Amino acid sequence: MPSISHKGALMPASPIRKLTPFADQAKKQGKKIYHLNIGQPDIQTPEIMLDAVKNIDFKVWAYTASEGTETYRTKLASYYNKLNYGVSASDILVTNGGSEAITIIFQACLNPGEEVIIPEPFYANYNGFACSADIVVKPIMSYIENGFALPSIEEFEKLITEKTKAIAICNPNNPTGYLYSRKELEDLRALCLKYDLYLFSDEAYREFCYDGKEFISPMHLEGLEEHVVVFDTVSKRYSACGARLGCIVTKNKELYQVSLKFAQARLSPPSVAQIAATAAVDTPDSYFEAVSKEYTKRRDVLVAGLNAIEGVFCPNPGGAFYVVARLPIDNADKFCQWMLEEFDYQNETVMMAPATGFYSTEGAGTDEVRLAYVLNETDLKNALVCLEKALEVYPGKTSK
Amino acid sequence: MPSISHKGALMPASPIRKLTPFADQAKKQGKKIYHLNIGQPDIQTPEIMLDAVKNIDFKVWAYTASEGTETYRTKLASYYNKLNYGVSASDILVTNGGSEAITIIFQACLNPGEEVIIPEPFYANYNGFACSADIVVKPIMSYIENGFALPSIEEFEKLITEKTKAIAICNPNNPTGYLYSRKELEDLRALCLKYDLYLFSDEAYREFCYDGKEFISPMHLEGLEEHVVVFDTVSKRYSACGARLGCIVTKNKELYQVSLKFAQARLSPPSVAQIAATAAVDTPDSYFEAVSKEYTKRRDVLVAGLNAIEGVFCPNPGGAFYVVARLPIDNADKFCQWMLEEFDYQNETVMMAPATGFYSTEGAGTDEVRLAYVLNETDLKNALVCLEKALEVYPGKTSK
Repeated sequence: MPSISHKGALMPASPIRKLTPFADQAKKQGKKIYHLNIGQPDIQTPEIMLDAVKNIDFKVWAYTASEGTETYRTKLASYYNKLNYGVSASDILVTNGGSEAITIIFQACLNPGEEVIIPEPFYANYNGFACSADIVVKPIMSYIENGFALPSIEEFEKLITEKTKAIAICNPNNPTGYLYSRKELEDLRALCLKYDLYLFSDEAYREFCYDGKEFISPMHLEGLEEHVVVFDTVSKRYSACGARLGCIVTKNKELYQVSLKFAQARLSPPSVAQIAATAAVDTPDSYFEAVSKEYTKRRDVLVAGLNAIEGVFCPNPGGAFYVVARLPIDNADKFCQWMLEEFDYQNETVMMAPATGFYSTEGAGTDEVRLAYVLNETDLKNALVCLEKALEVYPGKTSK
Repeated sequence: MPSISHKGALMPASPIRKLTPFADQAKKQGKKIYHLNIGQPDIQTPEIMLDAVKNIDFKVWAYTASEGTETYRTKLASYYNKLNYGVSASDILVTNGGSEAITIIFQACLNPGEEVIIPEPFYANYNGFACSADIVVKPIMSYIENGFALPSIEEFEKLITEKTKAIAICNPNNPTGYLYSRKELEDLRALCLKYDLYLFSDEAYREFCYDGKEFISPMHLEGLEEHVVVFDTVSKRYSACGARLGCIVTKNKELYQVSLKFAQARLSPPSVAQIAATAAVDTPDSYFEAVSKEYTKRRDVLVAGLNAIEGVFCPNPGGAFYVVARLPIDNADKFCQWMLEEFDYQNETVMMAPATGFYSTEGAGTDEVRLAYVLNETDLKNALVCLEKALEVYPGKTSK
């Protein structure tokens, strides 16, 4: 039998899915599981977007242009320009989800073995995209004590070598929920100009900023036109993860043209999703206000509830719909598995993502978990009760 | 400004799109263009498939499983088993178009620098996928004189080295329309077993076989369970190119699991397309019979018309909806551009794909073009008149 490739062997399995067999088993046993482990929101997709799907009127389900339809890109440009990005349709390349945007840009910008610095903990699938592109993620540690703020520029400089080609941030952050400040973005701007590095900005959670805090994109900064690439997606903005529609936004014309060659090879992004997402740009503000209010309430419930449990610490994040909490436990992987396999409270339990999957530094995050507040307030409160009860009896509890 | 990667620089631009600016210019001048250059059929998508899109009833446009929904894969398995593939849902991995199926498999099976042998002329985007995966396509020449039949096994063996990992065919073939015989498939079977090679079978055009000829897949051959990977797509079968839904089919369990890791990194294939394609499996036979009849008629018109032009030779292909024809011209790239830039007959012209883009051997196919019979009979006849008139006056005409 022919062998598989080294890359195939090295490709990381999704850390979030490691626990799936245990969850399946727990369900078979009749346990109710509160799924705080994944970023699939329960929020409804805007009606205007679903109606556009229902109202398709073509007879031939045809390819679109490889870069996406002119109509959609023009509409997207108007969306970005309301946010003062100063872009045109020709700066936007539509992709198969945000995932493809990242894959194309990693390949177009970095040679095999070259490095992108990413604050950790970070979105675990960056590892997969990096493996696929044969590039290296250099993690730079951020800390729960200060809410996972951007590491200092001095720490970044220590990591910069001949091989460093880019810095990537996710803002607001998955998994930490941290929202980067203008000062932090300005610091990154100076750093990228000093060392001539790309600045990749994954803005999947742009719409989810709380407490009146301002969202700042590298697109708002002067003099970075050639350096900045935004990764975007409609997945979270419109709760339309299954549409698989993302985009690359860059004012770097050469990079755009190179990225377009990768896009041409795979012919076209999905057409119905583009029709739907074009309509979605006109989603009324009231939708986002309601969603923001709902998430703020959930976050407040979750963060307060977590910090009320003895030995638990959870910073209060400014965005996205995740928190990373520190628990008084020996090992998050063991604990999360134990919650599914061994524990229940009134036949209920909680599924969480061990934070270890979001760190690439060995041994980091072993007492941390990521929780996605994608369930309603009542479910969150029930989940918190479960977690508290679990921590009372978990054999690997520590005295922190 | 940061540099782009070597891969980005080397990534081939789509050869088919090179002529687009000239076509745009011709349109601006008011010329009518018969588009025989691309594989976007004018055939209507089955109503059952479009109705499934219009009838979506979910409120949250959610991710599906990374490997595709259980419902869709089960339905797909029933489709394949009608063709005697003997597969189950767990042998099928749903992808973002056939393109992603190829990209994942190239990466999962071949190490950088390893080789896949592909009969040329071949689908030009294989070059892009190979560049992206950093693998090497070794072309093996097929010839217009015998209708682009499979090269002899002796010729294949001359190309096999330590680096050879796979053989890939497209059946029926794009761009040649050639339908491989059972004998040819059996020969490939023996070769792949002898050298322990993967056999990749791109079957995008499976439904398009004419003259009562039998379609044979490597899935029909004994003892190749670990070697065969089918690349498939709904694009041509249901004239649903814009759905961007393909799949990998393989009975090789290890390869399936490795491919799944790549699929998990990008989370999910598109959900509405899966709903639509599930419904599409129940497309009535009458749809395919009508389509086949229509394409057979068009092929007959086109092949007869081409061979009736002085100095033109076009084999009669058994499948797909392409032909490659030899023209009495000095240079197909120049000729196709000239057709758009300089020529018109009664203000009409024809856009074709120079065959050079489908060969990787330098200098091959310079007097050949690919024509897609994706237009109706009347348009095809008009296009043939245009082509004949063009060849009468083309300055680079040869005396062949």
